[in-house]
Amino acid sequence: MPTVPMIEYVDASDEVRAVYDDIMTTRQVNWLNNFWKVLAHHPPTLKRTWESIKEVMAPGAIDPLVKEMIYIAVSATNGCEYCIRSHTASARKAGMTDAMLGELMAVVGMANETNRLANGYQVEVDARFLTPLR
Amino acid sequence: MPTVPMIEYVDASDEVRAVYDDIMTTRQVNWLNNFWKVLAHHPPTLKRTWESIKEVMAPGAIDPLVKEMIYIAVSATNGCEYCIRSHTASARKAGMTDAMLGELMAVVGMANETNRLANGYQVEVDARFLTPLR
Amino acid sequence: MPTVPMIEYVDASDEVRAVYDDIMTTRQVNWLNNFWKVLAHHPPTLKRTWESIKEVMAPGAIDPLVKEMIYIAVSATNGCEYCIRSHTASARKAGMTDAMLGELMAVVGMANETNRLANGYQVEVDARFLTPLR
Amino acid sequence: MPTVPMIEYVDASDEVRAVYDDIMTTRQVNWLNNFWKVLAHHPPTLKRTWESIKEVMAPGAIDPLVKEMIYIAVSATNGCEYCIRSHTASARKAGMTDAMLGELMAVVGMANETNRLANGYQVEVDARFLTPLR
Amino acid sequence: MPTVPMIEYVDASDEVRAVYDDIMTTRQVNWLNNFWKVLAHHPPTLKRTWESIKEVMAPGAIDPLVKEMIYIAVSATNGCEYCIRSHTASARKAGMTDAMLGELMAVVGMANETNRLANGYQVEVDARFLTPLR
Amino acid sequence: MPTVPMIEYVDASDEVRAVYDDIMTTRQVNWLNNFWKVLAHHPPTLKRTWESIKEVMAPGAIDPLVKEMIYIAVSATNGCEYCIRSHTASARKAGMTDAMLGELMAVVGMANETNRLANGYQVEVDARFLTPLR
Repeated sequence: MPTVPMIEYVDASDEVRAVYDDIMTTRQVNWLNNFWKVLAHHPPTLKRTWESIKEVMAPGAIDPLVKEMIYIAVSATNGCEYCIRSHTASARKAGMTDAMLGELMAVVGMANETNRLANGYQVEVDARFLTPLR
Repeated sequence: MPTVPMIEYVDASDEVRAVYDDIMTTRQVNWLNNFWKVLAHHPPTLKRTWESIKEVMAPGAIDPLVKEMIYIAVSATNGCEYCIRSHTASARKAGMTDAMLGELMAVVGMANETNRLANGYQVEVDARFLTPLR
Repeated sequence: MPTVPMIEYVDASDEVRAVYDDIMTTRQVNWLNNFWKVLAHHPPTLKRTWESIKEVMAPGAIDPLVKEMIYIAVSATNGCEYCIRSHTASARKAGMTDAMLGELMAVVGMANETNRLANGYQVEVDARFLTPLR
Repeated sequence: MPTVPMIEYVDASDEVRAVYDDIMTTRQVNWLNNFWKVLAHHPPTLKRTWESIKEVMAPGAIDPLVKEMIYIAVSATNGCEYCIRSHTASARKAGMTDAMLGELMAVVGMANETNRLANGYQVEVDARFLTPLR
Repeated sequence: MPTVPMIEYVDASDEVRAVYDDIMTTRQVNWLNNFWKVLAHHPPTLKRTWESIKEVMAPGAIDPLVKEMIYIAVSATNGCEYCIRSHTASARKAGMTDAMLGELMAVVGMANETNRLANGYQVEVDARFLTPLR
Repeated sequence: MPTVPMIEYVDASDEVRAVYDDIMTTRQVNWLNNFWKVLAHHPPTLKRTWESIKEVMAPGAIDPLVKEMIYIAVSATNGCEYCIRSHTASARKAGMTDAMLGELMAVVGMANETNRLANGYQVEVDARFLTPLR
């Protein structure tokens, strides 16, 4: 149970409904996941977060499936169950295979390991890594 | 300055040199970055970490550039300067454009934000996200 | 279920009971939350932690409600369910409104996002931020 | 040195300049801190992040100084030097006294400690903390 | 429920069974914990992770019980329930007493607190701590 | 440079000097590291933190060298440079060998890796790990 009540579509204000409608239209689904129903508790956060996610996760220089895998990588690193599960579902829907999930988790695990080896030993950054490589 | 002395190639034991050689051959470079020279302080860690990285970062179901971007995503989330800089350099070398870096950081930022919104409000996982979607 | 048994008041040693009594007197309640019953497993930790919390959360230059909101900010960032829920309850009791919780979460989310943008791009600290501004 | 070049005002596109102007006008200053000059590398992220920060940090149910202190709390927890230093400067400017900074850090430290005690012992959430207290 | 199906011994491929057998033989038990059954979803990760853990947790310059306590310290800091519970069980089996667990948690809590005090105030490293002390 | 001025012994109030004296006496040294000179900015935090550290790091059921290694494990996981360097120095002084540091870092790295594998796949805790094993 979340720390604030969830707001269902039928109980939502016009402001909240407009966001809910845009979420469902953009995603071509007829349901809303709990995350949005909780954020609706604070309409400016609902609107701002949805518009940001919509912009950031749209196809661009990186394709949507890769973006979903990056989302899982961050969420697994932070240990956020909600985001791990919801983005694993989205990535599966977008075509992530078993082999891709296996490799994704392997990279996430290794990066978390070597981050601590580099920090734990206080490895100095090589001069050649300091120049912006544009 | 790291917390242990770095071991240069000329000072390395045969065991360490064998790993150093494999790193340079695999990466087709003639230099070693500081990370490995520090790990060489503990040869079993050098060997195990290199062999793991070599296996995990190899081409597979996910292509190497995407793997580098996932590495950056984890390292930025953990705030590891060494890994951010070294993997940004690797990703650039593997073809990451300005637009890709911009979108990568945007996704990393959003994921870190929504991870805390989901946890901070204790959003309950939707039943439909709980089934393994194989 | 915690990894150690909880110690109820009736089963507590005199040393533990003295802390339990002080918690209930200070907070003007007649019950103990699970956190303390678990810490009682190691009486020096129970005593030290309670005395520290009592000192740190007391009214001072920052008012108690703001301190509770800072506690929630840290706990949401770390993803600690117990502390998120217990301090959200305390903050509510101390007067946190729906609007305040909404704004608190918005700031926590943004800070987590920009922390990663700053680290991910390795933004250099501006010289003007380096001088202690006392 | 950041991983991408910083974009100075004179070199900025119209799109970026419009954001730069709004930052300086809103904050009533005639300079830009490095964070924005780095984000300008990816204009959509610059625009979205600035508009979000502007909305989130504005006066509301929580006053701006408290918002700055919450920002410091998160940044100290994540170990982000840039954000710790820039928001400590902002909080000082907004009136944070030495005593307030001292108490802020004390709360941040304690929260980080008890988060790990609660998680490390896997303390179960008390039933009374599970009900939304609206 | 994990995000991928668990693979039981009877359903495992020869490659997976070989790892399962080695786990049970090395640990002198006749059961497998869920972690391995989930990793078996991606056999290279199962094999590499098991071989790494087997090497790293073996008796050496640090005794196995201390290694288990270090594992708990990291897992409590990261808030990983699975690892906290499984390594608390292993440490108990290896001889960790109530007093040891109490002191371990106390150190973990204090380290998490002072890490944030040091970062939050941006304490500068003393020159005498910068020299490798070999 | 820290965000607050450091307070040297000669400039310290009687209250702060009493703590400084106790630190030097307890540790049998004639100097103070920067951490304490910064905390002295807020005397109650200086006093409380020192007394807590003194109690927690004293010999007990776990020996002081192991406590120092646990401190390093947490600090490396959190990426706190100050604490990594100061506690690596303390551990060296207390007898940590090269081999011990190598094994410590190996365990820290593996724990950070498997924490993410367990969370990333949402591995369910085995029933046998749920019972307190006292």
